[in-house]
Amino acid sequence: MGNGAFITFEGIDGSGKSTQLKRLAEALKGSGHNVVVTREPGGSEGAEEIRSLVLEGATDRWSAETEILLFTAARRDHMERTILPALEAGKIVLCDRFADSTRMYQGLSRGDLRDLVDQLHDLMIGREPDLTVLIDMDPATGLARAKGRQTSEERFEDFGQELQNKMRAGFLDLAREFADRYRIIDGDQSMDDVAADVLKSVLDYLND
Amino acid sequence: MGNGAFITFEGIDGSGKSTQLKRLAEALKGSGHNVVVTREPGGSEGAEEIRSLVLEGATDRWSAETEILLFTAARRDHMERTILPALEAGKIVLCDRFADSTRMYQGLSRGDLRDLVDQLHDLMIGREPDLTVLIDMDPATGLARAKGRQTSEERFEDFGQELQNKMRAGFLDLAREFADRYRIIDGDQSMDDVAADVLKSVLDYLND
Repeated sequence: MGNGAFITFEGIDGSGKSTQLKRLAEALKGSGHNVVVTREPGGSEGAEEIRSLVLEGATDRWSAETEILLFTAARRDHMERTILPALEAGKIVLCDRFADSTRMYQGLSRGDLRDLVDQLHDLMIGREPDLTVLIDMDPATGLARAKGRQTSEERFEDFGQELQNKMRAGFLDLAREFADRYRIIDGDQSMDDVAADVLKSVLDYLND
Repeated sequence: MGNGAFITFEGIDGSGKSTQLKRLAEALKGSGHNVVVTREPGGSEGAEEIRSLVLEGATDRWSAETEILLFTAARRDHMERTILPALEAGKIVLCDRFADSTRMYQGLSRGDLRDLVDQLHDLMIGREPDLTVLIDMDPATGLARAKGRQTSEERFEDFGQELQNKMRAGFLDLAREFADRYRIIDGDQSMDDVAADVLKSVLDYLND
């Protein structure tokens, strides 16, 4: 039992954060760390079912407010059943997206709902990550990558260049707002260089 | 467009509220009112899907807090897509259970979460019914009736006499707390007498 670390990855769609998260997990495991890889929305049995309910179907299937409630329900389940037990067992939890994505995608892109997202988070979740890795990159590159892997869940990524620009700026604003836990990584480098920068940031944090 | 009325039915399981709601709907329609009959959890396409997610499966599938979030998500969708449009069109909305059931079943029976339920309601729903009909009755009678119609969704009704007693007392407390909108009906009478009392209470309100 002990002192786990809760590390989240954030960034625009196509930023390569999922790939980089997996590379970091391998590197940490290779150096003997006990690592749990998870994602949002989802990451627990119940939360994955809520994920399907939210992400499939028409774009206007849920209002932004209902969507925020569903994401928060999924997050609560994910926290209770996956994240907190792993942290209590002293593991490093690497999570692909977390509350900051809700702050951006529901709080910013679907209306001016940031205050609502924050109030709901404070009431029902009440915990921020220990460290957040932001893969920051040219939005056009991210958009091209995201479009190369369309799935039925990709409707959030269907708003084009303007949304990507807005989300990039929004994540950089978040990085300033939560400067203590954010590490901004230059995602326009080669994947190997990005991976090296991510690993260095995380090891600096873990060894601090 | 105009002045609808939002009327909810509450009570312990087996209290006959669903039957009485239907009888009231027929009586009101017969006298020319435009009536919408709905229920919670559910009452809109999305909310019915959330209903299935919450009510089916093992009792410990969701924590009380996650359950409150899912019910609130369903309620938000139900309000937006069914209740508010009907009220704005001047209709009478009769709803089988609403937020008071969450105050009781999640806020009281699964833990001491009433404050959390209320805070979430204020943040995300923010509206109470205009009138609430409480069918109050001997918990033993309700329990016997509820047990006579077991379905896969009945797990909330599987906690026996003690829960029924607690819920009856809880609803009577709510009726005192929200005295302005609550009408307590004696559910231990014959069904016809209950129906007559319900109709009288509702007509008194509508004609006031």
